[in-house]
Amino acid sequence: MPHYRIPPIPGNSRQIQTDPLPALPTPCLLLDPVKMDRNLARLRERMKALGVSLRPHLKTCKCWEIAARMLPAPQGPATVSTLREAEFFADHGVRDLTYAVGIAPNKLDRVQALHARGVDIAVILDSLEQAQAVAARSRTAGRAIPALIEIDADGHRAGINASDRERLLALAAAIANGGELRGVLTHAGASYHAHGVAELERAAEGERAAAVEAAATLRAAGHACPVVSVGSTPTAHFARNLEGVTEVRAGVYVFFDLVMARLGVCGLDDIGISVLASVIGHQRGKGWILTDAGWTAMSRDPGSGNHDFGVVCDLEGAPYPDLVVREMSQEHGVVALRQRSKLALPELAVGTQVRILPNHACATAAQFERYHVLAPEGTIASEWPRFQGW
Amino acid sequence: MPHYRIPPIPGNSRQIQTDPLPALPTPCLLLDPVKMDRNLARLRERMKALGVSLRPHLKTCKCWEIAARMLPAPQGPATVSTLREAEFFADHGVRDLTYAVGIAPNKLDRVQALHARGVDIAVILDSLEQAQAVAARSRTAGRAIPALIEIDADGHRAGINASDRERLLALAAAIANGGELRGVLTHAGASYHAHGVAELERAAEGERAAAVEAAATLRAAGHACPVVSVGSTPTAHFARNLEGVTEVRAGVYVFFDLVMARLGVCGLDDIGISVLASVIGHQRGKGWILTDAGWTAMSRDPGSGNHDFGVVCDLEGAPYPDLVVREMSQEHGVVALRQRSKLALPELAVGTQVRILPNHACATAAQFERYHVLAPEGTIASEWPRFQGW
Repeated sequence: MPHYRIPPIPGNSRQIQTDPLPALPTPCLLLDPVKMDRNLARLRERMKALGVSLRPHLKTCKCWEIAARMLPAPQGPATVSTLREAEFFADHGVRDLTYAVGIAPNKLDRVQALHARGVDIAVILDSLEQAQAVAARSRTAGRAIPALIEIDADGHRAGINASDRERLLALAAAIANGGELRGVLTHAGASYHAHGVAELERAAEGERAAAVEAAATLRAAGHACPVVSVGSTPTAHFARNLEGVTEVRAGVYVFFDLVMARLGVCGLDDIGISVLASVIGHQRGKGWILTDAGWTAMSRDPGSGNHDFGVVCDLEGAPYPDLVVREMSQEHGVVALRQRSKLALPELAVGTQVRILPNHACATAAQFERYHVLAPEGTIASEWPRFQGW
Repeated sequence: MPHYRIPPIPGNSRQIQTDPLPALPTPCLLLDPVKMDRNLARLRERMKALGVSLRPHLKTCKCWEIAARMLPAPQGPATVSTLREAEFFADHGVRDLTYAVGIAPNKLDRVQALHARGVDIAVILDSLEQAQAVAARSRTAGRAIPALIEIDADGHRAGINASDRERLLALAAAIANGGELRGVLTHAGASYHAHGVAELERAAEGERAAAVEAAATLRAAGHACPVVSVGSTPTAHFARNLEGVTEVRAGVYVFFDLVMARLGVCGLDDIGISVLASVIGHQRGKGWILTDAGWTAMSRDPGSGNHDFGVVCDLEGAPYPDLVVREMSQEHGVVALRQRSKLALPELAVGTQVRILPNHACATAAQFERYHVLAPEGTIASEWPRFQGW
């Protein structure tokens, strides 16, 4: 089972004495490795059944110990959202990367430095200016920079329309004039706002169809277009057919979060990270419990826009019914019952510790320098470092 | 002029070759030290005229090079929002600190470790449980932990009502049973949502009156209550009278931001930090310019809730009229004209660099590992490191 290795414990991860949770400084970020492994196995099996490769996105974890469990093989493939991620994972031996944010010409130096180290990193682009910059740099360096054309499947962000044949072929020709046209890439980001299974399945099919249409146009014009890359965690879990697709990208599935639970991609019990917080006060007249997990810990990601910032659980991870983070300041969280709840506020004395499930795992994890990894007996087995920056 | 020293360049700040801005990797955080110094001088002069001490809050900057300019003297006083801040600034010689977030009993070990190092750090509290924990720990250690009672001036977060004499005296008695009752502290956080000068002046007077009332109650009962601490950046700049107050706390005034500009506390031209970003694409049909400053750079702080995440400026720092950050994902910013703007979108080619003023300086700065400090000639003079965590 090469995909399901025991994670390495490299030199920079700290093995600590198994501390019970109440001994931990708060706020801190807890990781449940059993849930994480279950989430990883689920998508891995799904992709295998659909016959496509998985190129996991490492922007969610930003941690080698976790990436090592996500990667199909130690050398990759993987997706990154910053060049800092690319450089970090290259330092750990990853050799097959896609930098899935539109390339700025002033970043090509760092891309080429990675190529010089033997890392095959592809960039993405959706404009003639970018394509010309990539081709010009490729010619100067005498080494083709691989580039994918970004396709806009759903209007949510970047990319060109798959049916805009003229623009697609102009970009392809500009890249091929010195660079390497690696293929096409799309991301159905609008799927994060879908309602119900039918909409998720439509988003997945829309993503597939857009990428496959663009690839067909390029191939008909004589371009090889070896890569047809699609993906988002929701569409990866709801695609019924991936014909014509060569790889799927997904990142947040490693942890899942409240946005994914609302979409029906996972259950609350699948969410692999939580913020450990301490109760620091009460405003009983208002029904508020104050904790030390403010926005420096939770981030201010609005999630599905329901105006809450997290679901509050006990130390075993069981949600207190209707108890959510209602508001935050820098180092304060205001915990209260959901609007219109008919329940009573639980009695949580000052010093009580709670675990808070995040709206958006990428955003909450980004606020921390490390994961505290839970052991089965409810203690902390180790700390795994995270990095930030660009 | 002891308050206006040239900042030290300690060993951990990196002097770099003076690079023009377009050579910088993006996104990065620019600091204009001339605006910062002007902001600091303004509040310093104001406090001097009102006859009170300033206890600057270091949670905004989290940087020694900046703190050194904010502090009235190298040893303090200062305010912090985490024990990591307290420990970091203690390492740099600060000896007079208030940890202005309600104390959790499991954090008293670290407070006492600071006392053992000769750092006078006071905690704040608003419950009997906390007061009893502080007193019990003080007795065990044979050294009184100083504590301030948090007063709720405006209902926005923590603290007890200044007119709740019974609770106030019960807390004071519980603290004094081994601990040290240092005084009272309040923060008019609701002032961030004020409209107009009259409301700001009322918020400032409400903050003063609440703290002074609580102090009078304590003194009438025989408690010394030497410290009467108030503060927020808006009230510090609009208080007309601080009679009875011994110190004012403020933090975001060091940089200011769009929330403070909307309140009228500063102008856009006073905002001392901005995020340098690169244009990475366009969706011309939608009027969108895409940049590489997503929420990992800007944070998702909603500011004044106008649904924008930053004001977009040119490299000299002049705002493009009506141009704002409309939406973000992890590493993408969607820049567009304000809703209902009648202007034309400026032509910003891929690779163009822009500077983005933040909604909330504390939240945006918290996303970065360092400040890139601007030199008068529009180059970068040095990098000043920031820290994060708890």
